[in-house]
Amino acid sequence: MDNKSRPIGVFDSGLGGLTVVKKLLEHLPNENIIYFGDTARVPYGDRSRETIVRYADGDIRFLLGHGVKAVCIACNTADSMARTEMEKRFDVPIIGVVEPAARMAAGLSENRKIGVIGTKATVKSGAYARVIRALAPEAEVTSVPCPLLCPLVEEGRFLPGDEVVESVLRDYLAPIKAAGADTLILGCTHYPLLYDVIEKLLPGVRLISSGFASTETLVKTLDRLDLRNPSKKPGSISFYVSDAPERFAENGGMFIGREITGKVEKVTI
Amino acid sequence: MDNKSRPIGVFDSGLGGLTVVKKLLEHLPNENIIYFGDTARVPYGDRSRETIVRYADGDIRFLLGHGVKAVCIACNTADSMARTEMEKRFDVPIIGVVEPAARMAAGLSENRKIGVIGTKATVKSGAYARVIRALAPEAEVTSVPCPLLCPLVEEGRFLPGDEVVESVLRDYLAPIKAAGADTLILGCTHYPLLYDVIEKLLPGVRLISSGFASTETLVKTLDRLDLRNPSKKPGSISFYVSDAPERFAENGGMFIGREITGKVEKVTI
Repeated sequence: MDNKSRPIGVFDSGLGGLTVVKKLLEHLPNENIIYFGDTARVPYGDRSRETIVRYADGDIRFLLGHGVKAVCIACNTADSMARTEMEKRFDVPIIGVVEPAARMAAGLSENRKIGVIGTKATVKSGAYARVIRALAPEAEVTSVPCPLLCPLVEEGRFLPGDEVVESVLRDYLAPIKAAGADTLILGCTHYPLLYDVIEKLLPGVRLISSGFASTETLVKTLDRLDLRNPSKKPGSISFYVSDAPERFAENGGMFIGREITGKVEKVTI
Repeated sequence: MDNKSRPIGVFDSGLGGLTVVKKLLEHLPNENIIYFGDTARVPYGDRSRETIVRYADGDIRFLLGHGVKAVCIACNTADSMARTEMEKRFDVPIIGVVEPAARMAAGLSENRKIGVIGTKATVKSGAYARVIRALAPEAEVTSVPCPLLCPLVEEGRFLPGDEVVESVLRDYLAPIKAAGADTLILGCTHYPLLYDVIEKLLPGVRLISSGFASTETLVKTLDRLDLRNPSKKPGSISFYVSDAPERFAENGGMFIGREITGKVEKVTI
């Protein structure tokens, strides 16, 4: 396989990264994709940096074993806790989700008040605030850890009108509302599914999904390195998980926005 | 160390097993205890049998490395999915949480209608229903998977009056209420913290916590094998986790019912 037709590797702790793949399929339809979901060790969001680094290392080695030309960390937790270290360890372009979304927020916020929601680990890392302040030192960043959102989304409780998810979100979003943020980063790849309910609770606030910004950066990186697949055919997509492939196939559809057909392969990493 | 003064090994995927330790400390105050919480891979409740067996195997090997005289699986998921296999693999008394609670429920239920709540894996295993029906073939068992309860409890949302946990529980408990159960097994070691709110929602229903029943079985097993520690001094307790020892020390108190003092050691298994 020549350099350009090699696949793009995407990984996440589980299902959430499929919201990034959804965007990749829209913007890079001719690329081949290898997705790895670390479902035997999901979630990453409550774990320590040391453990997240160890897991991300294994995830990337798995993708490199499949000859990927670039790696997309489609997990805010892994990106914010481990990307710097991964860039030292591996000689492959690594695109995350944090920096692109932070740049977009810093560019778009008019009142310089930006909210960030994410896992405990993502918020603890301070990665979003760091990138935003580097670009807009005057910006006020309000970051809120939202540990209950991933479990709720995975249970299908993400629609407006669900009193439980609305109540939980109302509490989480209160400090962001109080700060008067005009822009909110959905700093976890599960959160695009909560778009409608967050929009309902924070009317008029610009919502930035990490997947969209990340795809834009990936396109630019592939162009800069002359690594775009020249094929005119639709690319292939292969799914690998470390546990419960049937459940991944069954539940993945709501994240990727279409049915997951074809084999989901279980691997032990 | 002689045979009888060797410690009892207790493991769980994370914090929940500490509710079992709480009961052990009450009923076996002179025993030494080694607790292992697999916090780098918690939760087990959504994982496949194959992965749970692999994790339980590692957990027990770790405890055996500390010379334990008996193992208590203080995790309903690991017990229901892996105990039979573990008993084949290891030559040490292994006490679970499922069978003792199921026996107690079968013995106490008057109308022979028994409810079980637990993780997805525990309910899928059918372990509770199997033990209950072996003892009381006429019993009607209504089992409900409750995947949101562990995340809610870990976030401290387990008290009566919390509208989120009450709403989530009202949904989960509806089939059990509809079935007219007079006895409900709290089939996850996190659930004793939900005792008051469940009691509020199911007034008059007998609630059985797996930790209590399990301790009784452990006492009997130690007596039968003549393995009780004859010491009159309070036993020691050592905590090991696979990730984030500080968080374990900080949050463990609400499960074990007293402050966790002393070192919590991090190990990679």
